[in-house]
Amino acid sequence: MKFKIAILGTGNVAWHLAPALEDAGHTITEVFGRDRENIESITKRLYTAEGKEDLDFSESEAEIFILAVSDQAISGLADEVILPEESILVHTSGAVPLEILGYSSASYTGIFYPLQSFSKDRPIDFSEVPFLLESEDGTTLQKLKKLAKSLSTLQYLIKSKDRLALHVAAVFASNFSNHMLRISEEIMARQGLDFDMMKPLIIETISKSLELGARKAQTGPAVRSDFNTLEIHHQFLNYNEQVAEIYKLISQDIIDSY
Amino acid sequence: MKFKIAILGTGNVAWHLAPALEDAGHTITEVFGRDRENIESITKRLYTAEGKEDLDFSESEAEIFILAVSDQAISGLADEVILPEESILVHTSGAVPLEILGYSSASYTGIFYPLQSFSKDRPIDFSEVPFLLESEDGTTLQKLKKLAKSLSTLQYLIKSKDRLALHVAAVFASNFSNHMLRISEEIMARQGLDFDMMKPLIIETISKSLELGARKAQTGPAVRSDFNTLEIHHQFLNYNEQVAEIYKLISQDIIDSY
Repeated sequence: MKFKIAILGTGNVAWHLAPALEDAGHTITEVFGRDRENIESITKRLYTAEGKEDLDFSESEAEIFILAVSDQAISGLADEVILPEESILVHTSGAVPLEILGYSSASYTGIFYPLQSFSKDRPIDFSEVPFLLESEDGTTLQKLKKLAKSLSTLQYLIKSKDRLALHVAAVFASNFSNHMLRISEEIMARQGLDFDMMKPLIIETISKSLELGARKAQTGPAVRSDFNTLEIHHQFLNYNEQVAEIYKLISQDIIDSY
Repeated sequence: MKFKIAILGTGNVAWHLAPALEDAGHTITEVFGRDRENIESITKRLYTAEGKEDLDFSESEAEIFILAVSDQAISGLADEVILPEESILVHTSGAVPLEILGYSSASYTGIFYPLQSFSKDRPIDFSEVPFLLESEDGTTLQKLKKLAKSLSTLQYLIKSKDRLALHVAAVFASNFSNHMLRISEEIMARQGLDFDMMKPLIIETISKSLELGARKAQTGPAVRSDFNTLEIHHQFLNYNEQVAEIYKLISQDIIDSY
């Protein structure tokens, strides 16, 4: 089942998703954005899509309209956009409830949330991206499932309430674990040490954690309740109060959870 | 150059290191421990090593004595152990300075620190483990370098001062990133959601971070200064005050560092 799809938004998700949908055999009819240059950065990756700077889609041939914009922008765009009859409007956010699309001119609404971290500098293999889907309309949900299946082997039906929990969990698993690497990089750089030294440890830590589960995989001074080392480390970090506080709080949480 | 080596300690590092040293052609003469069962858990992985419950090594044929024990135990064991003439005593810790071995009966002292996270449940490929080496004696350092080279392609000469920084950096990169996965697992479990959903995101996040650097790789609500989502997430976590505080503090640190 091939769809005609319009993409609203020109950020990282739109940038990766639009060409992937085309590669899967769908047609991208339009790409909407506020800025001509941003629109073109997407349309030039596509065969047929037209750039569009206004929100009147009443003449569009698309059936599915994907809002791939920042969380704050979803509600305003959903209210403003003029959609044709029988159209489906979905957003791609992990944090915004389905109800927010309820005031739009769409006949049907849904969520089409790819659980992945998108950066323009790096290609994405969509076949391994889990798609989290939601709709109150059964036929719409089936269509979203077929759309997701055309891109990926992983689809899940997730209610908005669970999607919020999942999004919080994703922030810890992705953004916060990445920030731990960032702090590590900065400690090494400050000392003039090569961060490459740390890479085998990071790769082994994450592989082990995914295999054994994080609880069983934990090592280090906090899980050993090695208070002497914890104190030496905390003192070492006294040049950055906030990072020292992060050290203390996470160590305490590790101690408390064994 | 093949060495005769005694291992003092029966923990995770000893458990992995002793057989790896034997595989590299060295001879393990003795394994010291306080508990017969723990000693045997190591010696039964080895061809020739004798178990030993006392610290009189004056008759040992070993040249290199590796203290692979918890940080707190290093100093006491180093003071107590009776070593033969011309022996080299090293420890394997990231956090303990070289000077602590200065009161031992060893002729030479050093550090032989494998920068890796060791768990008994999981085999280690030593060829990719960075060995961080230190000694004030040039010949000893050469021997430690040869020993490390027989196990791994990665050796670094690191002073105690830098080794402390490196150990703090390793705690963030390994123990703390693993704890972020642990919190994520718990949020998912509490909601009855399958953590497998999160795995492609984690693998992509870490791969991207190692390729682009963590600063450039960051995504999510904090780096976008999406205060609305941050607030919703923080409220969601109100069932666990400490985790809510971790959420707030790390988000603030991400915001502050862009």
